[in-house]
Amino acid sequence: MDPATTNAGRAAAAAGDRDLYRAAGFGRPVPRGKRPAILVVDFSRGFTDPAVPTGADMAEELAATRRLLDLGREKGVPAVFTTIAFDAAQLDSLPWLHKAPGMAALVQGSPLVAVDQRLARRREEPLIVKTGASAFFGTPLAAQLAAWRTDTVIVTGATTSGCVRASVVDAMQSGFHVLVPRDCVADRAAAPHEANLFDMQQKYADVIPLDEVLAYLGGLPAAAAAEGGRL
Amino acid sequence: MDPATTNAGRAAAAAGDRDLYRAAGFGRPVPRGKRPAILVVDFSRGFTDPAVPTGADMAEELAATRRLLDLGREKGVPAVFTTIAFDAAQLDSLPWLHKAPGMAALVQGSPLVAVDQRLARRREEPLIVKTGASAFFGTPLAAQLAAWRTDTVIVTGATTSGCVRASVVDAMQSGFHVLVPRDCVADRAAAPHEANLFDMQQKYADVIPLDEVLAYLGGLPAAAAAEGGRL
Amino acid sequence: MDPATTNAGRAAAAAGDRDLYRAAGFGRPVPRGKRPAILVVDFSRGFTDPAVPTGADMAEELAATRRLLDLGREKGVPAVFTTIAFDAAQLDSLPWLHKAPGMAALVQGSPLVAVDQRLARRREEPLIVKTGASAFFGTPLAAQLAAWRTDTVIVTGATTSGCVRASVVDAMQSGFHVLVPRDCVADRAAAPHEANLFDMQQKYADVIPLDEVLAYLGGLPAAAAAEGGRL
Amino acid sequence: MDPATTNAGRAAAAAGDRDLYRAAGFGRPVPRGKRPAILVVDFSRGFTDPAVPTGADMAEELAATRRLLDLGREKGVPAVFTTIAFDAAQLDSLPWLHKAPGMAALVQGSPLVAVDQRLARRREEPLIVKTGASAFFGTPLAAQLAAWRTDTVIVTGATTSGCVRASVVDAMQSGFHVLVPRDCVADRAAAPHEANLFDMQQKYADVIPLDEVLAYLGGLPAAAAAEGGRL
Repeated sequence: MDPATTNAGRAAAAAGDRDLYRAAGFGRPVPRGKRPAILVVDFSRGFTDPAVPTGADMAEELAATRRLLDLGREKGVPAVFTTIAFDAAQLDSLPWLHKAPGMAALVQGSPLVAVDQRLARRREEPLIVKTGASAFFGTPLAAQLAAWRTDTVIVTGATTSGCVRASVVDAMQSGFHVLVPRDCVADRAAAPHEANLFDMQQKYADVIPLDEVLAYLGGLPAAAAAEGGRL
Repeated sequence: MDPATTNAGRAAAAAGDRDLYRAAGFGRPVPRGKRPAILVVDFSRGFTDPAVPTGADMAEELAATRRLLDLGREKGVPAVFTTIAFDAAQLDSLPWLHKAPGMAALVQGSPLVAVDQRLARRREEPLIVKTGASAFFGTPLAAQLAAWRTDTVIVTGATTSGCVRASVVDAMQSGFHVLVPRDCVADRAAAPHEANLFDMQQKYADVIPLDEVLAYLGGLPAAAAAEGGRL
Repeated sequence: MDPATTNAGRAAAAAGDRDLYRAAGFGRPVPRGKRPAILVVDFSRGFTDPAVPTGADMAEELAATRRLLDLGREKGVPAVFTTIAFDAAQLDSLPWLHKAPGMAALVQGSPLVAVDQRLARRREEPLIVKTGASAFFGTPLAAQLAAWRTDTVIVTGATTSGCVRASVVDAMQSGFHVLVPRDCVADRAAAPHEANLFDMQQKYADVIPLDEVLAYLGGLPAAAAAEGGRL
Repeated sequence: MDPATTNAGRAAAAAGDRDLYRAAGFGRPVPRGKRPAILVVDFSRGFTDPAVPTGADMAEELAATRRLLDLGREKGVPAVFTTIAFDAAQLDSLPWLHKAPGMAALVQGSPLVAVDQRLARRREEPLIVKTGASAFFGTPLAAQLAAWRTDTVIVTGATTSGCVRASVVDAMQSGFHVLVPRDCVADRAAAPHEANLFDMQQKYADVIPLDEVLAYLGGLPAAAAAEGGRL
């Protein structure tokens, strides 16, 4: 096997797909709104600790997300975090835990469900507990974003091919424009990571470098952003 | 570029990913229940007519889905269809139509939103109109499946990397075991099709040959299945 | 029976309840936002035509709602309508139709599901089809309101004790402040109408005279309102 | 004021309303299914402790609910509890807390959010945390009930005119038949309690004596019920 050839082949195929998608009317840029919010999906120790079976090394993506959060905090952009945490009483019946029993380690009270400390979550940043893949499914997240009068959701977290993808689809469906800073989403495997970035960029979100998202936040008027969730 | 090499490279990578996912506790088989339902996602002319910009040739997948539906009808397994159809009043404001303006051709009343006639939808098979990617988002589908006392959802339709993927995630999240007969899901591009089958098989559903699904339906007791949606 | 006595008794009881609710921290006024939207619930002929079993004479409430809509249209405030319309394939299985089989007359294609012409619905005002009591349940309404960047929902329609009540609860839960102009909500029976106005005022919405809502809309800056659903 | 006259007047009015609703096709009995589940809404100390501003004396309704739970446990009928518990980070932005700031005492970690001990909740009975009125809104409850293959939901709890009413509407909308044992639902005020029992009985659920629900559970085949949430 020749990786260069493989990569070239993949690049050619992806370029062909991009043309196909363009002809079908996909892949256009989404507007950047005046009231963004930052969503941090499942950067909990169950995913960010490489010593855990469901985890992987996500140090770079965590550092990039911290940069995003810090600028957002400075500009008054609200942030919300999610974590997967099952009630022990649910473990027998939920279909997801038949397909992916590795998730069952994420029970309420386990240290695995805590948000990674490298993100320094603040008291005023809500933590949404979820039992599905999407940050929106079976949670009050859409209502929280609407209550903040959000127009644009910046999605970060793990994993790209799982809960991030599902959350991006739901954020778009819920009425928001979606940005995915590619430096801020992580996965345990490279091929699904890339394949899902491709899908998201074509169909649901702008997948862009972190620097572009930072420039967008930096350009927000201080007052408008600081108005935050207040009416 | 040497496609054989490329394919070999991809196969090796996929095999490695499968090991990784297995260690993380993904990819286990889901139970097959006693009360399945068949979900047909967006096999409307906007997707099944290759002459339309958003369409592609899906003749084989339609024929396979027809085989599934015909056996299901014989066994009393309920079926439900979806189609994307926007109210013209929504075209300016929905975020999806900024990212994927090609979808805006799917307006109510257009011939593009009709279910493909090759599936011969029957009067007793509900048609769910949706304006998002998932068959469940902003629709009463989960309630309909619960009213039928469904335990297992067989998902077919188009496109694998878009509305099928989103619907499979939501079916699982909604409390159902999910089967995807791979012969019955179609896409306009091969790489996203394969990548999404991989994700779904690892995390959300059993992606299996149609014959295996037919054998499962064939083995259902006639009475139990015929009881259908009735209490 | 002496109605005056009865009314006095009721008034005394209601005053006692209001004190009780006040002590429990209910019944406070909600903020009025900068981006309202008008929701018209089920003012379809199945409810507004007194000749129909499920209908009643709602001429006054329709006229009041028309006044509200006309000012909203002038000010660029978006409006959205709902109607109940079942797919014939759902009639056997939906639980609501066991409890309230009178609703089953509201099938797709029936003249009963058309919005009352006295409201002169416009092309740019979406019609949401629902199969439950709430305008939000199993519909994309919350996403539409979020896409419009709505902060305040003005709820009108029928019936006060049924679909209006359920929609008001969901509007509040979905992240919006809710106003109910009492002249614009109608019911077929007086006691449930009054009881539900009381509940809504105490727990979910400001139930106020139409004139107060008109004054609020009249005071909106033309530009902000006209920006409507646009980002 | 003559209470007897008042009551007589009310009874006459209610009888008239019942005739009106009957003619409109409401108030029919709902089927009793084979797989019920018990939902206990907000019997937390914030509502059941009369010393708390939002609470009231609900000792009788708690005792009745305990009888229901005990028989259900014996018969293998699953139970699920809810409690309201806000993340402190949400207190500023949620619309409900503008209208009903008394609810803001129900923050995570407060003793007020604990389920009343008189119900002896068991480890295998999930606790759903909610931030709205309905047990279903922004929670995975519908998915849990579907995962249990539930067909009938027995709703108990507090308050009748608030979270019970909202949960009953959503249970019906979610595809389930709904029973409300009137001995098991409590409110802080009599008039809203009665008015909401009337609405629920007419439109969404069978409001019946606890004894009738106990007889129904007692008549379930042991095996079918014990199968519980298992496929």
